Amino acid sequence: MQLAEPMIEDWRAFVTTAAIVEASLEADAVTVQWSDGRRSPFHFAWLRDNCTCSACVHPVTREQVFEIADMPDDLVVREASVGGNGALQVQWSDGHRSAYAPGWLRAHAYDEKSREERRAARTVKIWGAGYAASLATFDWLDVMRDDAALHAWLVALRDTGLTLVRGVPAEAGSVGEVARRISFIRESNFGVLFDVASKPKPDSNAYTSINLPPHTDLPTRELQPGLQFLHCLVNDAPGGDSIFVDGFAIAAELRTRHPDEFDVLGTTPFEFWNRSASSDYRCSAPVIALDACGEVIEVRHANFLRGPVDAAPQTMPAVYRAYRRFIRLAREPRFRVERRLTAGDMWAFDNRRVLHARTEFDPRGGARHLQGCYVDRDELLSRIRILERQPAPQ
Amino acid sequence: MQLAEPMIEDWRAFVTTAAIVEASLEADAVTVQWSDGRRSPFHFAWLRDNCTCSACVHPVTREQVFEIADMPDDLVVREASVGGNGALQVQWSDGHRSAYAPGWLRAHAYDEKSREERRAARTVKIWGAGYAASLATFDWLDVMRDDAALHAWLVALRDTGLTLVRGVPAEAGSVGEVARRISFIRESNFGVLFDVASKPKPDSNAYTSINLPPHTDLPTRELQPGLQFLHCLVNDAPGGDSIFVDGFAIAAELRTRHPDEFDVLGTTPFEFWNRSASSDYRCSAPVIALDACGEVIEVRHANFLRGPVDAAPQTMPAVYRAYRRFIRLAREPRFRVERRLTAGDMWAFDNRRVLHARTEFDPRGGARHLQGCYVDRDELLSRIRILERQPAPQ
Repeated sequence: MQLAEPMIEDWRAFVTTAAIVEASLEADAVTVQWSDGRRSPFHFAWLRDNCTCSACVHPVTREQVFEIADMPDDLVVREASVGGNGALQVQWSDGHRSAYAPGWLRAHAYDEKSREERRAARTVKIWGAGYAASLATFDWLDVMRDDAALHAWLVALRDTGLTLVRGVPAEAGSVGEVARRISFIRESNFGVLFDVASKPKPDSNAYTSINLPPHTDLPTRELQPGLQFLHCLVNDAPGGDSIFVDGFAIAAELRTRHPDEFDVLGTTPFEFWNRSASSDYRCSAPVIALDACGEVIEVRHANFLRGPVDAAPQTMPAVYRAYRRFIRLAREPRFRVERRLTAGDMWAFDNRRVLHARTEFDPRGGARHLQGCYVDRDELLSRIRILERQPAPQ
Repeated sequence: MQLAEPMIEDWRAFVTTAAIVEASLEADAVTVQWSDGRRSPFHFAWLRDNCTCSACVHPVTREQVFEIADMPDDLVVREASVGGNGALQVQWSDGHRSAYAPGWLRAHAYDEKSREERRAARTVKIWGAGYAASLATFDWLDVMRDDAALHAWLVALRDTGLTLVRGVPAEAGSVGEVARRISFIRESNFGVLFDVASKPKPDSNAYTSINLPPHTDLPTRELQPGLQFLHCLVNDAPGGDSIFVDGFAIAAELRTRHPDEFDVLGTTPFEFWNRSASSDYRCSAPVIALDACGEVIEVRHANFLRGPVDAAPQTMPAVYRAYRRFIRLAREPRFRVERRLTAGDMWAFDNRRVLHARTEFDPRGGARHLQGCYVDRDELLSRIRILERQPAPQ
């Protein structure tokens, strides 16, 4: 069997880590035997769906044009074999032919072992107060000029959720320039860039001088901003130190020590409402969100942006027990990284994971002005993948 | 008992629909008896959390400064009574006092009947092909000038998910001006505004002239854009008609007729990947998303933006059965609204609900140029709430 055309996969290169030794045809699947002993079933519908020929995939956009709904109900594989190039070759009962490169096929195999391998690739690093001594710190000039430094910074941001960039010019707008090394900025009702300073008519507690307890920003939106950047332009007022808590560490502690309370916070929607004369955002969502594998992927928490809890009466005492515990854990020194920013420092952190707080400051004792912006996690992960497509960064 | 200060709630006005007849003190709650016979329990922690005094709520931002973690473990209500102003008044065992206006309290009561009332307020209107004859259509000049017309348009957009605005000046940028009547625009890697036309080196099937099957835009992002606006600047090429399908109607049909398949699409994460030389977005999420009450709140679907399905081998045949059914339903004429845009028409639709499609067009036969942008659901709902705070629109 010969294929007239190259395989159109996506834009990544797939390394062949194991060869296809044998392809066996079964009732509704082809089972591939790999050179390292693994066996992977590939069902007919899955194979047809992923055909890489130029009739099924647009050769320029590399997007699929074939729709699996058009697969005839009685379509079967007539013949499955290993080609001279090592690819799995399939001859369909309607005459169509498909081929799958071994690197691509292995990367997408869905036997239990391959799926487990992918799940194990999670790179989250949880931290407590000790992280203050080894805080991932980067230099502005490196990050702006050098893609390898950019990559190192973004990977640290992805995995620890809290990084510091030093030497950012203490000028308005600098924070946006750094953020745009990743991608465009996510605008909000507070603007593209927002200024954190004590204001005469504040529309948020953030714009007063009172202490702000640990929180995520904009929990009132369906999707909280993924990354937050806070750049210090001036910090001469007494007080106003930065405090960070790894929300994933709090969630892990709850899960281990108080599993019932973890479940309550993972399943009870809380009300997050903003209060403003010109906007009225509301979101109903749990404090802790899990992915399909049960891993914690998000913490949503700002005490000052909550509406009244709306839960069944019989559950209310348990809801408050769990929520009070959550706040109290976030106050424990063992979870807190504290640091005072100086002009030119910029925090970059995962706003859906890391709770940030500030101590009260005295605006009469000096100026305090931070400038910030948001970028979503989608943009961070896309940028990392693109940087990793090129020759591997140092 | 006297309160020295006014109650600080939020920025809304709460109408008193029932009076508080009696407040009974129980072991861990105050039960309110309303004049219409309803009884609502309010637990101590809930009441303390929602104290409206100026020590607990910042008087300018109206955001909470009290944290419920600071409630003493042994705090109880000493006395609950109805004040001369009709408010529930509470005397706490530590000396603190709280008051709750009856309109506010009733609006946030969480007895089962009050919760059920709020759930029943859902305003979604599902439609099929017949909607073409009664399509919610608005005039550009009205929407731009008149807040009542703006409100009517946005409510239709919220409830039906598909509206047409006519008479939009056929000039580049007009679409952004209309969208900004709601709020700021959500940027993407395709820009703030994007141009839909056949391009020489397309980075999406959207930018070719081939037919696009029913889909949502950017399913590759954690949060798909909530609203999409598509403004027709010129449409002289043969073909290229617009097709819309109410994804909620497809989901409802599945739920009724094929409940097992509905469950598969509601629980199996599908892979949504973009393929581009400069970006690499990926999202793993089910085709149908439900809220905490089990109501469908989102459909996520673009055949040409899927990565290989990554599901347990034993589930794969059922996953494809359900997915093929979903696509086939979306092709049935009874679900489709078809219409050809002319210059000056603008579609506005809920991109997380309504699938849109276009037929193939012949770029050699004439020009076709649409300009579009996105705004999130959060912004739509906030704008509607703000418009409704003012004297009710006609």
